[in-house]
Amino acid sequence: MPNITPEEHLAEVLARYSEVPDARLAEIMTCAIRHMHEFVVEVGLTREEWFAGMEGLAAIGQMCDEKRQEFILLSDTLGVSMLVEMINHLAAEGTTEPTVFGPFHVDGATRREMGDSIVVDPMDADEPLTILGEVRSLEGGPIEGATLDVWQAASNGYYDVQDSDQTPLNMRGVYTTGADGRYEVRTVRPVSYPVPNDGPAGALLEATGRHNWRPAHVHFVVSAPGHKTVITHLFDRESDFLDSDVVFGVRDSLIVDMNGGRCDYDFVLEPAA
Amino acid sequence: MPNITPEEHLAEVLARYSEVPDARLAEIMTCAIRHMHEFVVEVGLTREEWFAGMEGLAAIGQMCDEKRQEFILLSDTLGVSMLVEMINHLAAEGTTEPTVFGPFHVDGATRREMGDSIVVDPMDADEPLTILGEVRSLEGGPIEGATLDVWQAASNGYYDVQDSDQTPLNMRGVYTTGADGRYEVRTVRPVSYPVPNDGPAGALLEATGRHNWRPAHVHFVVSAPGHKTVITHLFDRESDFLDSDVVFGVRDSLIVDMNGGRCDYDFVLEPAA
Repeated sequence: MPNITPEEHLAEVLARYSEVPDARLAEIMTCAIRHMHEFVVEVGLTREEWFAGMEGLAAIGQMCDEKRQEFILLSDTLGVSMLVEMINHLAAEGTTEPTVFGPFHVDGATRREMGDSIVVDPMDADEPLTILGEVRSLEGGPIEGATLDVWQAASNGYYDVQDSDQTPLNMRGVYTTGADGRYEVRTVRPVSYPVPNDGPAGALLEATGRHNWRPAHVHFVVSAPGHKTVITHLFDRESDFLDSDVVFGVRDSLIVDMNGGRCDYDFVLEPAA
Repeated sequence: MPNITPEEHLAEVLARYSEVPDARLAEIMTCAIRHMHEFVVEVGLTREEWFAGMEGLAAIGQMCDEKRQEFILLSDTLGVSMLVEMINHLAAEGTTEPTVFGPFHVDGATRREMGDSIVVDPMDADEPLTILGEVRSLEGGPIEGATLDVWQAASNGYYDVQDSDQTPLNMRGVYTTGADGRYEVRTVRPVSYPVPNDGPAGALLEATGRHNWRPAHVHFVVSAPGHKTVITHLFDRESDFLDSDVVFGVRDSLIVDMNGGRCDYDFVLEPAA
């Protein structure tokens, strides 16, 4: 028998995965296998490069623990996480655009009254900021009973979960709108911060000549009865790194003015199908 | 700004990885990123599926240690390892076909005289076998000074490195041909054996309805001055699983008769470029 070709080899592998009992698993596996094989052929991956890849993947896995998910960080820095958000939460024209969820959300943050502050631990570098506006439906009216789950890094660049000096749930709050659909969150101006670069994902950023910074932003999850939930950020227009966010999360429509202690932004939600 | 498309997002990510100082790294990264993004779009990966993937990759990494490389096992079971061998060690017509190296080779195996046995620890199930033949050049003549590095699982289905009851370097030997190019290796008939299924790679095999067995084989690395090294196996024609090798390593030209205590096979090497 002559040598079989890479195409014939791929066909053999795909055939072996075609009898998967779970049709969705079959779809995902065969698509992933095809792309892996095409990648190997297209770059002409050498055995040494393949082995370096195997060792790199193992090292990424070894870096993971309950508080650190290095594969998610890698996915973020390769633009994959943002892509997953984009295709699953496609915003209708005129609604607030989504962006990455990120690894620092915490369930069960403190419920706060409109106008309350999320700052539990004040810091010297704090620059007060009030973010306010309306939550409204794409169909026009203000939304009563909309929930805004807000979180951000403290002025030292760390989230509470990264920093044992912060009180748990510092810089987090959950707000619910009244009949006027208005919201008002008191906080501090966000700062840009680096994602962890002490692991393999950071090493890859360095090897590829990329910095590891995110531009200054505040996280929001805005949900309301009868509407699609939006997961997004608001970015500070005066921040560095807006053109080179390490996780590719910036969208022009999410860049807002945060100087002068005030930020005005209306969230627009799409009615659920 | 309107929503950007997945294609525009990919272009932005690729642009960010286009200034990689190492041109080969840039080639590998941009190709890998493109395939990852295309995979996500083609299957419409949900956030839950993406997260399950992130957790699965972390679990695979956690399974790796000095004696176990679960990513290599996964690569083997997806046909990727075999593909890497195929594209890097393309056999010229008429030469011995290569197959996977596998994870069980050990450097520094015992040098043996022609006709010596690799069996250090005899087992009750042993069925004696002599493998013999010639190492010759594709240009015709026998090759003097060719080295055959031979290894296989013992009759209990385990390699020495997997089985603390075996003497280290059991079932391994390195032989060198004389002027006649002949070799003769005494051993036992190989057995089929399962690859480890106690980790995430095994769980994926099970979820996809695949068994985890390799057909019976003996490993060879054959090298000689002035010739390309070939990494290959000889498979027992009477073995189970020849049509469904879990790592896709079987080639028709490598299936040989091993009954009657004797196996004849000539290795044919291609002159180095």
